[in-house]
Amino acid sequence: MLSVVILGTGNVAENLIHALYHSKQAHLLQIVGRKQHALNKYTGKAKITSNFENIEDADIYIIAVSDSAIQMVAEKLLGKQGLVVHTSGATSMHSISSVNKGVFYPLQTFTKERILDFTNIPICVEASNNQGLELLHKLGTSISSQVHEISSEQREKLHLAAVFANNFSNHLFHISEMVCAKEGLSFELLKPLILETVQKLESLSPYKAQTGPARRKDIPSMEKHLELLPDEEHKKLYTLLSEAIMKTYEKEL
Amino acid sequence: MLSVVILGTGNVAENLIHALYHSKQAHLLQIVGRKQHALNKYTGKAKITSNFENIEDADIYIIAVSDSAIQMVAEKLLGKQGLVVHTSGATSMHSISSVNKGVFYPLQTFTKERILDFTNIPICVEASNNQGLELLHKLGTSISSQVHEISSEQREKLHLAAVFANNFSNHLFHISEMVCAKEGLSFELLKPLILETVQKLESLSPYKAQTGPARRKDIPSMEKHLELLPDEEHKKLYTLLSEAIMKTYEKEL
Repeated sequence: MLSVVILGTGNVAENLIHALYHSKQAHLLQIVGRKQHALNKYTGKAKITSNFENIEDADIYIIAVSDSAIQMVAEKLLGKQGLVVHTSGATSMHSISSVNKGVFYPLQTFTKERILDFTNIPICVEASNNQGLELLHKLGTSISSQVHEISSEQREKLHLAAVFANNFSNHLFHISEMVCAKEGLSFELLKPLILETVQKLESLSPYKAQTGPARRKDIPSMEKHLELLPDEEHKKLYTLLSEAIMKTYEKEL
Repeated sequence: MLSVVILGTGNVAENLIHALYHSKQAHLLQIVGRKQHALNKYTGKAKITSNFENIEDADIYIIAVSDSAIQMVAEKLLGKQGLVVHTSGATSMHSISSVNKGVFYPLQTFTKERILDFTNIPICVEASNNQGLELLHKLGTSISSQVHEISSEQREKLHLAAVFANNFSNHLFHISEMVCAKEGLSFELLKPLILETVQKLESLSPYKAQTGPARRKDIPSMEKHLELLPDEEHKKLYTLLSEAIMKTYEKEL
């Protein structure tokens, strides 16, 4: 049984704690965090401490804190024998000073108080040696059916791809909601459309799934839309995204 | 029982035919289209004809053809007593010349050979008179639990909002897939993230759900991402979308 210490109490930590607590192959030994009130809810699930000098000995230490705090927290673990990993998509493995180090990056967006099922969440692992890699495979498969060995270079590209897929698309949903709100229309009207946009990707690539005025090079519709948008920034985004779509398909039109 | 004639055999028509055929309150009388081979698959479900001079008498005629063909098809129905509607988000009701006219706009993205359940699809209706509106409510509730009276002005804004929510976000998914492909990474890795991006909207507005480097005003991460993007157009999109996000939250940072 793998013994695990989790450092952090944010959204990623909260989700990992939940998944590992229910895993039969891992033993959640201790949760370490600065905030006592955030730790208290785990009483009975694992040992808890807000004292970073009191960290238990474990097989794996998972640092699930904000990117800028990883290095500092990792230094608290320098005397430990176990494997030290972080969970960040954008941070190099080498921000951890320990010899036995790695990355355990669950490719997902985690939200406060939203506990997700890890079974289908891809876990991207990387380690400084084969033994560490083996440990991370064991830990990964104890909570997910998808464990992938991903290098630092690949991971930073994945993180960039995730910014387009998640952060930027979410902002488009926000703009969409604003357009509705100005007309007194509920954003609820658009939710079935948004859901289908994503469900469609199960059977169709985004390249093939593309529809709309820009895909058809329907200039009058695009001009009409630009007239309807009051915000200069939204006009710019509309124009740039429409041009990008037209360019993507120009050979076909 | 409402008798309905559908004109068109494209994706919207295909989905409406399926929904109305299974509706207990509507009678799918006839399907009219130019292409005999597209009509043939409906043999036994309704009368079919490719002759626009042979249209049956019905309570409602639904024109489900491309925007540019609506007016022309509507003219074939000038002698009819029934209500003539189109299904377009971007076309004025007045492109139909009949006195009894309206719009029956299912707010959804329809794909070839992908038959959707209409129960949760919002149907936006508009008519030139109350009697027509009543008919469209009856027809709408025969296939969906969501029928909304939406004016032409609201409908064009909804269509614009749908372009951001569906067309543009889909293009971001395409860029995301391209970033992965260049690194030899499967787009499958991002699908759980994309699905959760959307499922999260059930409990959180997009405004509140926003995460990522731009949301945190994490300049080093954004600079790093711009270096990683080889395509000039993608760099421009990354910059503009990040600026838009930072501007949206600047009061909070």
